[in-house]
Amino acid sequence: MAVDADYDAFLDHVRRLTYVGDAGSVLMWDQEVMMPEGGTPARSKQRSALSGLHHELLTDDDVADWLDDLADVDLDDGQQAVVREVSRKHERASRVPEDLVEELSEATANAHPVWAEAKEAGDFSQFADTLEHLVDLRREYAAAIDPDRDPYGVLFEEYEPYLGIDTAEAVLTDLREGLVPLIDEVADSDVDLATPFDGEYDTADQRALSETALDALGYDWDRGRLDEAPHPFSSGTQFDARVTTRYQPTDPIDALSSTIHEFGHATYTQGLPEDHYGTPLGQSRDLVVHESQSRFWENHVARSRPFWEYFAGTVVDHLGTPADPDDLYEAANTVHPDTLIRVEADELTYHLHVALRFEIERDLIRGDLDVDEVPGVWNDKMDDYLGVRPEDDGEGCLQDIHWSHGSFGYFPTYSLGSVLAAQLDEAIRANRDVDALVREGKFGPIRDWLREQVHRHGCRYTTPDLIRSATGTTLDADPFLSYAREKYGNLYDC
Amino acid sequence: MAVDADYDAFLDHVRRLTYVGDAGSVLMWDQEVMMPEGGTPARSKQRSALSGLHHELLTDDDVADWLDDLADVDLDDGQQAVVREVSRKHERASRVPEDLVEELSEATANAHPVWAEAKEAGDFSQFADTLEHLVDLRREYAAAIDPDRDPYGVLFEEYEPYLGIDTAEAVLTDLREGLVPLIDEVADSDVDLATPFDGEYDTADQRALSETALDALGYDWDRGRLDEAPHPFSSGTQFDARVTTRYQPTDPIDALSSTIHEFGHATYTQGLPEDHYGTPLGQSRDLVVHESQSRFWENHVARSRPFWEYFAGTVVDHLGTPADPDDLYEAANTVHPDTLIRVEADELTYHLHVALRFEIERDLIRGDLDVDEVPGVWNDKMDDYLGVRPEDDGEGCLQDIHWSHGSFGYFPTYSLGSVLAAQLDEAIRANRDVDALVREGKFGPIRDWLREQVHRHGCRYTTPDLIRSATGTTLDADPFLSYAREKYGNLYDC
Repeated sequence: MAVDADYDAFLDHVRRLTYVGDAGSVLMWDQEVMMPEGGTPARSKQRSALSGLHHELLTDDDVADWLDDLADVDLDDGQQAVVREVSRKHERASRVPEDLVEELSEATANAHPVWAEAKEAGDFSQFADTLEHLVDLRREYAAAIDPDRDPYGVLFEEYEPYLGIDTAEAVLTDLREGLVPLIDEVADSDVDLATPFDGEYDTADQRALSETALDALGYDWDRGRLDEAPHPFSSGTQFDARVTTRYQPTDPIDALSSTIHEFGHATYTQGLPEDHYGTPLGQSRDLVVHESQSRFWENHVARSRPFWEYFAGTVVDHLGTPADPDDLYEAANTVHPDTLIRVEADELTYHLHVALRFEIERDLIRGDLDVDEVPGVWNDKMDDYLGVRPEDDGEGCLQDIHWSHGSFGYFPTYSLGSVLAAQLDEAIRANRDVDALVREGKFGPIRDWLREQVHRHGCRYTTPDLIRSATGTTLDADPFLSYAREKYGNLYDC
Repeated sequence: MAVDADYDAFLDHVRRLTYVGDAGSVLMWDQEVMMPEGGTPARSKQRSALSGLHHELLTDDDVADWLDDLADVDLDDGQQAVVREVSRKHERASRVPEDLVEELSEATANAHPVWAEAKEAGDFSQFADTLEHLVDLRREYAAAIDPDRDPYGVLFEEYEPYLGIDTAEAVLTDLREGLVPLIDEVADSDVDLATPFDGEYDTADQRALSETALDALGYDWDRGRLDEAPHPFSSGTQFDARVTTRYQPTDPIDALSSTIHEFGHATYTQGLPEDHYGTPLGQSRDLVVHESQSRFWENHVARSRPFWEYFAGTVVDHLGTPADPDDLYEAANTVHPDTLIRVEADELTYHLHVALRFEIERDLIRGDLDVDEVPGVWNDKMDDYLGVRPEDDGEGCLQDIHWSHGSFGYFPTYSLGSVLAAQLDEAIRANRDVDALVREGKFGPIRDWLREQVHRHGCRYTTPDLIRSATGTTLDADPFLSYAREKYGNLYDC
């Protein structure tokens, strides 16, 4: 009886913690999508108050006491998973001194305008001291959590707690080593893929196309909405999982891919169990698994030839452009090795953009690279991996916002998500005729498989256990590399 | 030194409390304006978690200690005002037992669907037990705050803390006694006012008209936005004060009035001092003063003849209807004594709708009226004050949501706000040629007067002190009655 009472009180506290965190996400969504510009000063204070309360609830002494008491108790599998997840976060948060949390928060707030100006000026030297300070603070942060472990590995666990940096690093290395020669071959190919779009396309028409795509894929509009944001994202809960996209006048495939990418995130969120809302069993796994969902729908579904066979007519309906399925398929899969900007990169070269960021941030945090060396190493690696050099730091090492946020260890999750997406794609294809389903616009059976194997579990399993249960194996770059070699070999005749 | 340190720590706590409350308002706005329907279960939990934390921060023992310490200290006027406001809220919140707070929260959550069904069925008996329970709980609530005072007076202070129920009651009685004979004369008048609108008007055109009106009046779009909501409202802070409106296809004046009403609220909020954000000096006074701002702009500006002289051309531009200023003025001021629904009522009869609600809820809370008698008393008063009887309770005593929310004491603030608006109008006219300014669309000097006399003070003064400083007198129904007699006497030739 006392045990149940303890667990129930603990769970009430956990729910409260989640509700405060989710309220913070609503404020973030509103700030990105709806808030007028003048609202920033007040919104920063509101969000910071909620973060502070979230931190206090997470590190509360009561949580430590409950966790102690519950360690001696027979819990069922679900309860054990809840305790495992909360305990991990409680431990991490409790080890970091308040002062350091505040210093980091202040340093990142101050860093943002410095980074933005340096990027605008294309001059890394303006940002160097700021970056050095953030690297130092994050090293301190990692040491507070565990002084005896690789600090980059500790920071990586902020975004993916269970895979381990060694596995991640091995997979990322395999991925890079497999992709560099393939991209070389593609770059040398004489094949010119089709460019069916020219002119400009209305935002309203593009929006209608995105809505039709979301309808077709099975987005639950009663629990979501579609809006515009300069940097598309999705956020929310199983009751309200929203997506955003952005419309480029000359490139309607960009908005569509972005919408479908965010659909992948949102359909994961919509598939979490309702009755566990507020606890880890009702929350999604971390960034690698989340990104596998977005990349699966964006690439393995919506960049496939069957998808364009199914969807070409819809494109014509909305955009008025006569479009051949093969041409659309080619347009959606054109490789541009000379693209300097990560967020504009194609399915293949994207991972080399990620690889160099990963290698640089890892070496910075491990103390193997000085901040001043960043632009040189960046440019050399761009040359080495993709055969291009940025003309200034604005289109080079200053292009991404992540480091100015003090985020180190985030980048790898993008590529690892794609790797996992290819493994899931293989696993689904062992059970379903994915091409036939997609060609007929029957996405339900694909969604159902993902819901059954991934979504409904929330955080019941750790990442490696979830991967094993869904795919029967461990994280592995080979399926992605085989998929890429076959697809792009055919497209580029190489 | 210790004193300053105490006050600073106290103020930090107060700010945190405000930020959490303001975060709750963002969640409310999103729920009313943006949230998909399926989001309700999660949103209720998020909002309830924030309310709970707000309550804990407000009733915190530290607050009591700070208030004790600060009682012995020399504070400047602004600091004294902060202490006065926080102390009042802390006292009230601390006196109500947690159990009762939770019981009330649960009872109102349960009441809403019961009320909605009873209203739909037009049958008060379905709601009677629920209402009785809410009345009992609110009587208990008032007794917890102060068992020795009139419980209705205590509840009224939830919405207007400083005027006192005796003043409110005297003013409301004067207002009703002045309006009933005037409305009788209007009802007996042979004059038919113009009806310049027929047909249906596009939402997009009406929206553009509302936007143009907001531009003209001086709404700061960098700190606000306009959206649609079924029950228009405004919310936010001085950094982000948003308005909503609703568009009726056949009645473009309805949306315009509603937009301008909410503009009045929002321009008050936008005029609060930025540097006091988070403390009572950066917060608006309560509902009577707030409603005076909305009613001033809605009625004394936008229902005036000079306004329509200025704005008629804009109406033509947006709606394509050729419209004579006199016709528009008449259309905006038509009295309909046979309107049964408060929110559809005109500037005059509105106050009799409020009067009967006030009288009924006051008597319920004081124990002078049984819940079962409500429909009968309601219908008799409608007959008595306005000469009409509802056909069922849906268009009678069930029409408003307030009681189902457990809100008793809110209704009077609507009329008292109008009364104060007329007093402010008189005071401005003693300093500015309002008609000439409005006729030329020069609203800046009017906004400036209100900012100087009302907005910038936040909660520095109590309501009566603020009224005295702005108007030189006390709350008084006479200016409204004079204004109404002159305006409607001219319109209806009576």
